[in-house]
Formats: sequence, C-alpha cells, structure tokens
Amino acid sequence: MPDTIPAPPAGRPRRSLTTDSARFAREVLEPVRAIVGERGLLTDRDAMQPLMVAWRDNWEGRVPLVVMPASTEELAAVVAVCARTGTPIVPQGGNTGLTGASQPHGDDTEIVISTRRMNRIRAIDLDNDTITVDAGVVLQTIQETARAQGRLFPLSLGAEGSCQIGGNLSTNAGGVQALRYGTARALVAGLEVVLPDGRVWDGLRGLRKDNAGYDLKQLFIGAEGTLGIITAATLKLLPLPTASATAFLATASPATAVAWLRRAKALLGESITTMELMERRCVDIAMRHNGAIRDPLADRHDWYLMVEIADQGEQAPLEARLLAAFEAGLENGELLDGTIAASAEQAAGIRRIREGAPEGQRLEGASYKHDVSVPVSQVPRFIAEADAALAARFPGIRSFAFGHLGDGNIHYNPIQAEGGDKDLWQSFLPEVNLIVHDIVARLGGSITAEHGIGRLRINEVPRYKSAVEMEMMRRLKRCFDPQNLMNPGKLLPDAG
Amino acid sequence: MPDTIPAPPAGRPRRSLTTDSARFAREVLEPVRAIVGERGLLTDRDAMQPLMVAWRDNWEGRVPLVVMPASTEELAAVVAVCARTGTPIVPQGGNTGLTGASQPHGDDTEIVISTRRMNRIRAIDLDNDTITVDAGVVLQTIQETARAQGRLFPLSLGAEGSCQIGGNLSTNAGGVQALRYGTARALVAGLEVVLPDGRVWDGLRGLRKDNAGYDLKQLFIGAEGTLGIITAATLKLLPLPTASATAFLATASPATAVAWLRRAKALLGESITTMELMERRCVDIAMRHNGAIRDPLADRHDWYLMVEIADQGEQAPLEARLLAAFEAGLENGELLDGTIAASAEQAAGIRRIREGAPEGQRLEGASYKHDVSVPVSQVPRFIAEADAALAARFPGIRSFAFGHLGDGNIHYNPIQAEGGDKDLWQSFLPEVNLIVHDIVARLGGSITAEHGIGRLRINEVPRYKSAVEMEMMRRLKRCFDPQNLMNPGKLLPDAG
Repeated sequence: MPDTIPAPPAGRPRRSLTTDSARFAREVLEPVRAIVGERGLLTDRDAMQPLMVAWRDNWEGRVPLVVMPASTEELAAVVAVCARTGTPIVPQGGNTGLTGASQPHGDDTEIVISTRRMNRIRAIDLDNDTITVDAGVVLQTIQETARAQGRLFPLSLGAEGSCQIGGNLSTNAGGVQALRYGTARALVAGLEVVLPDGRVWDGLRGLRKDNAGYDLKQLFIGAEGTLGIITAATLKLLPLPTASATAFLATASPATAVAWLRRAKALLGESITTMELMERRCVDIAMRHNGAIRDPLADRHDWYLMVEIADQGEQAPLEARLLAAFEAGLENGELLDGTIAASAEQAAGIRRIREGAPEGQRLEGASYKHDVSVPVSQVPRFIAEADAALAARFPGIRSFAFGHLGDGNIHYNPIQAEGGDKDLWQSFLPEVNLIVHDIVARLGGSITAEHGIGRLRINEVPRYKSAVEMEMMRRLKRCFDPQNLMNPGKLLPDAG
Repeated sequence: MPDTIPAPPAGRPRRSLTTDSARFAREVLEPVRAIVGERGLLTDRDAMQPLMVAWRDNWEGRVPLVVMPASTEELAAVVAVCARTGTPIVPQGGNTGLTGASQPHGDDTEIVISTRRMNRIRAIDLDNDTITVDAGVVLQTIQETARAQGRLFPLSLGAEGSCQIGGNLSTNAGGVQALRYGTARALVAGLEVVLPDGRVWDGLRGLRKDNAGYDLKQLFIGAEGTLGIITAATLKLLPLPTASATAFLATASPATAVAWLRRAKALLGESITTMELMERRCVDIAMRHNGAIRDPLADRHDWYLMVEIADQGEQAPLEARLLAAFEAGLENGELLDGTIAASAEQAAGIRRIREGAPEGQRLEGASYKHDVSVPVSQVPRFIAEADAALAARFPGIRSFAFGHLGDGNIHYNPIQAEGGDKDLWQSFLPEVNLIVHDIVARLGGSITAEHGIGRLRINEVPRYKSAVEMEMMRRLKRCFDPQNLMNPGKLLPDAG
C-alpha cells in the first residue's frame, strides 16, 4: 500500500529548473556534459524513469537531468557546478530505500546524481582487515569479495543484491546481523565525501583508532545525503565464521522471548548474530502466500524466535551450545518448543519464514508499516499497548509484528481487517501512525530504527524530538549546506 | 619527562577574568554561588591546586574559580551564566588525560567546571543491557556495577580507578580491549549534553538502532569538551565472559607478529580481547625497575605478544583453542616460543610485564612518547622506518615500542641513549616528534590514536590534516560554540 506523501516542506526550493530551459542548458547541462561526457548523463524522460520511482511506494519524481559521474573527481566537479548555480541535488545509490530519500520531488526542481558508475573495489588489505570501495559498489559484491578472502562483511539486508554501499552508509543501514556487528556506522573506518561546495574531503583512513580531532565521518553516516555525497568508504572486515547454527523456537509471548534472549546472551555471548521475533500470524500469512514455506513445528504457538549463532571452530560444539540454550529455555518455561536446523537446507527453510512475512503481508490488503525501536525491555509493553490501542480504535485490525528483537527494532505492521475495504482502511494510515508512534515515544523509542526519515517521516519527526534537538539538526545542516542544495526536503522539514 | 607545551593559540581568549575582580564576583562568582551553593565551588588556590595540574606532564593551570555542580540542572545554569558573561570554561572529569585537555591555561582566563560531584548511577536495564550514569561516575565503578549483574562494561584502561566516564567519552578512550569491543564511542547508546549556551540536550536514549535524523551524540564523543559538556550517558553492556585465557608469545619481528595475528583472527574470531606487541627492551626495562616482574620464557627473544581471549562457556575448551592457535603459529614459523597461563596468578604475571613497560620507561631518562596508529599492515614498516630514521639522527637512541597491535595503535616511545645527558636529550623532542609523525602520516596513520589532541598535539595537527578537514572542524566548532567558550585552546589551534 502507498505510504503517506508529505507535502514539500516550506524551505524546499520550488523554482523549476526548466522554467528557463535555455539558461539551465547553458549554466548546468552543458558544463556537466563537459565534465562527464555523453555516457555520464541522461536527459530523456523514459531513460530516467527507473530512477524516478521507488520500488515500494508510489512517489514519482521528475528531474531534467540525471548525472552519472565515473569518478570522485567528476562527481565533485558536477557538485561544484550545482553549487555555483544553486542547483539542488538528489544523490542516489541503488534506489532501494523505503522512505523516499533517494527519489527526487516531482517538479523538476532538482537534478539526480547517481553513483551507479562508480563501482570499483579500490583496495583490500587483509592484514588490516579493511576494504576500500567506491560508493556505487553493490553491497553483495562487497560481501562476496570479502568472503572470497576468508573475511566477513556483515552488513546484510533484503536489498543486498542491488543496494549500493554509499546508500547503505548514508542511511546507516541495519539488517539482520546488527545485533552482533552493529549498524553500518560500526563498520566504517574511513570515508571520502564530496561536500556541498564541490570540494573533496579525503577521510579514507583505514584506522580503528584515530582521536586526532572531531570524527567527521560520523556526520555523513545516516545523514541521507543532506550534508554531502559519500563517494567512497574504507570498511572493516571481520573473521569469517566457520560454523553456524539456526533454530526456530516457539515462545508464549514477547515477554518470554525477552527473558530467553537474556538467558541466551549469558550462555552464547556475542556468537548470536540474529534474533528475530515473529508472531504466529506472520507464519500463517507467509505460508498462505508462499507454498515453499512450511511450519517446522507440529503444534501452533503464539510467538516464535528465529535464532542464528556463528563462530570460528567446529560445527558440532556450536550446535551443542545452541541446543543447551534451547533446553535451558524449555526448562525455565521461556520456550515451548523448537527445532535446530540439521542441515543447510533446513536453515534456509527457517530463514524463508522470516523473509516471507513482509511479502505475505503485502498481499493481505492495506497494512501500516512501522520501523520502530524501543529499549529491548520495553518491547513486550510496546506490542501490548499498540495492539490494544489499535484494536479499540479499529475493530478487526490484525496485529502483525516481527523484527529484530535483539536490537529492540520491531517492524510493527498491522493489517486491515480480513475482507475490509482496502481504500477505507488505507485512509486510517495517519491515525494509525500517530497512535503507534506516540506509544513508541512514550517508551523512549525511535519512530525510525533503520529505514530513516527521508520524505516518509519528515513531518512526524518534530513531534517526537525536542526543540533543542531539532535546532541542533538544523544548525548542523546550515553549517555544512548553507544553500540547502543537498537532498532538500529530506530528513529535515524546514532546512534552508 | 615533560611533553611540549604549545604556545596559546592565536584565537584563545587572553583577558584575565580577575583583572576586574569586582565585576567577576558580581557577574560570575555570585550568580554561580547562588546556583551551586558553597559546597559546589572552590576559590581557594590551594584547594584548587590538584585540579590545576596533570599527573604526568608539567602543565599548571590557574583559574579564579572551580565549580562542582551536583546535577545537570546546576551545571546547565552555570554554563548559562558563562555564556551570558563570555566566560570560558574548562570541563574536567577525573583529570587523568595525557594531553592537557582537562587542565586550564595558567593565566586566570577560564573557570573549571568539574563533574566530580555528579556521580550517580541513574539506572541499569538488564533486559536492554544498558546502564545510565552521570558523567562523574568513575570508570571502575561502572565496570563493577556491571559485573555485579553478570554484565561486562568493556572499556578498560590504566586510569580506570580515577578517570570519569564523561572524560572517557569526551576523549573517546580506547584501552586494551578496543580490538574486540571498540573504543568508547562504540559503547554509547545515548548522551545528555549541556550545550555552550546552557541548554540541555537530552539524548539519553537506550536504543541500539535509531535513524531518526543526524546522530548528534557522535559530535560530542571525542570532542574533548570543545562543543559542550557531557553530563550523563546511557552505555551498552555486554555478556560477561565466563572463561578467559592468557598467553605470552615470542615472535621474531613485527612482521611475524602481524602474520600470526591474521592466523589467530581466523582461528579465534572475535574472542580475542587483547593483542599487545612489545619489543624485548620493554620486558628488560620493566623487569629492571620492578622486581615482581619475571620473564616467563627461558630464552630471550626480540619481540613478544601478550594475548587474551575470552568467551562464554568452559575454561578448558577456550584454553585448547588458544593452544591450537599458538601451535599453528609455531608450525608456521610465526611464533618462536610461548606460554599459556595455567592460573589466574600466571595470567596476572603476564599482564604485569605489559603494565610495567611505561613505568620502567619513565625511570630510564628522557623518552619521547607517541600514541600513533597506522593500518595494521603498516605496523612493521612504521617501526622499521622510525627506528632507522631516529638511529641515524640520534646515535644511541633506544627503541621502545609497545602497544595495541590489533588496532594498529603503537605507543612508540624511544628512550635517550644510556647514560646520556637528560636535558640535552629532552631538547630533541620536537625533532623526534616530527620524524616519527611524518612517517606515520606517510603510512596513512594518525598522530594520536587514543589520547587525543588536547594541548599536546594542537600545533602539530594542521601539518597532518588537509585544509578541507581543518576547515570542516573549525566550521563545526563555530556552529556549536560560536563564542569559543568551551575548552578554548584545546583540539583546534585557531578556533574562535
């Protein structure tokens, strides 16, 4: 279903670049063409179309120009042209985001700079366990390059086959292994960034410790392209685990799930890579829409955990450790049943259940997506309060919660009543958002744990942040992008 | 030996606050007294003296007032007085830093705000694995509070019995376990900060994932108190390992040490908490000055590694894993000899060697301390080039390198020639720094890996950072502290 489309914020430039098309051609298009050449730009509306739309939402952008620089130098020169002419820029990577951060607005007020042609692996240093890549390298390529050298690049998410690392870093992507390895931010040793004035900041240091001044790279990670364009990164690699074990466990409630998580951490330490919580309906709906998905357990239960652990060493002792933690959970009443995958195929089957939940949900009618986080200790209360509040207001609404329990990051995505009118239910979205996000805020949480603000949440953010915090964000934006040229109308509602 | 004392930077305020002492009393002292009460301030020079000096260096500050607020509200109100009156502030925690960042200048131009009375543990959340503490809580208190609950707070360093967490975060402290757990930055979930205008930013969120806007806490971590005063933090706790193993291993050179580190990471994964490199002279000098230190190996070797691994589970399998990695190193010629501690006492004995190196060095005459990092792959080259360059320029100089090999963080601290004139050798310091730091920079390193800039390195930093980077740092400073009131003359040579 479509997400809300917030109105353009007051501060966003509204002048169409094509109002004076001769001037645009003279001042922007031709200088850019001279920098990147014919291969480095698109002006044809059909050719640009795939970059104008998001894969999940119904936003559609419209720009007079897409630039695809082949190098940092080209990209910097293009940004310098934009800075000189006051031309707003939407930076775009793989265009797989879920918040509209990488789509232009629909009014020809911006140009797109895509990193898709900047896709070199620049270097890999096996003694330092770092890899240096262009921003446009696809995440999966980095994973595979690392794996071929016996290393792990642990960032992993659904879009990994097409998302680009520059976008992953600009949105501080999370994914299913963040519990153990942290979000994208934790995996960055150094960055190269083109600043809004077209200068290049070379912060591509492959260091794990560097306290020589402000840690400037932190500014650009998660900034959604509003402070500059990440053009390259030096990323940390980890030892590739040699053994892994996967379990599908039944539990009575989010509270018992949290209790077992606590026990599991004490027994399994940092070997836990994945700890996904799902309610029964997620399993039912995943199975309903995908014949390849099966419930591995004989009986039905209300809640499930999908757990993966990984480590160096042999397979058997690792499985034994997971089994011991499972049995301790059964003994203490935190778990009700479960199975540990006996083969790679069985492990894949378990993962498929979790992966099938979002797709199944999409086919069930209107649903309300929330990418929230609360302290892990508050997850049971959050789900209970949100379920109760929504059921009272919207009788028949079907709860649908799954997510990364270990991070307190729940994709709380309730679905319309069975058989209800989809359009009617879609119209409830703003009120559902408000109810859910108010509860999240009261419990000390965040209304976007991993997807970011983009356009989707831009008008909700000020409700949940203090005036001080909003002003600090605006100050930072003005400090680095005083012309408000970098991805205007994203992340901050009234920048510029 | 004393480190260099850089001249006050051009931009630092030079007006003594006591020139017009009646005005200072009326506009600053009395309003502050009204906020914090008699117990919350010091004006007596003798009483203030311990806060004016650094424990290792010979800097000595002089201020007319030390304020010790009891709460964030008091501290914020004091900062507001300073903002209104243009009074520069030196924030101070445990005063254990090594760069002069927490000492005032010696000319009565600043006041000190100490967090020593802000020492409450505010909350601990065991399901969320977080602890919320005032900035003035001593690091060891946090470690012990966590341990009592079966949790690990992994930040660990020599000064842990007196340093305060606010200072640890403001300097992004590293320590001996950073290889596994990261520096202080990696352990922060949320911060509370008093901004230079006296407003409080409440960013005390206990979340592991939060992509709702710029990650503002990153600005203040490692900023050395130049952008605001950290008043509280929510910190991440980890599972407490239940087993650990310690080894003292002999190796031929830094290059063989790096080769074995690579093998050890493949075999032991993230269980490696400590990987300290030492040259033979460190062992000799540690033993010479501390009778309790013994060489655990029968033969002399040129280089050593002190290794610790830790994990959940039983002791015996963990020791077996370390033994297997040791034996693999012997077989492949990366290691020459070694011993694995068979008891806690033996492990303590091994740690004592490493801990004895800095103290032994101090007693050997003039030495030249460098807290540098390079990519791990460049450590052998760095040590070889620096040794050669110094030996050529200063015949008889004794190499003395130890440090955190796993992070590429080497404390490269050569010592004067045996029996040479100490004053003469001390006078070589600037040239030694230049030679060493130029090599570090050429190899892509940092001139301060963990200690920070403070006053010690303030005039060296611009040589090793690009003009773009220096300007970005200045911009950030001006953006958040336009009056240059927060710890002026630290970190940035020409702020304000």
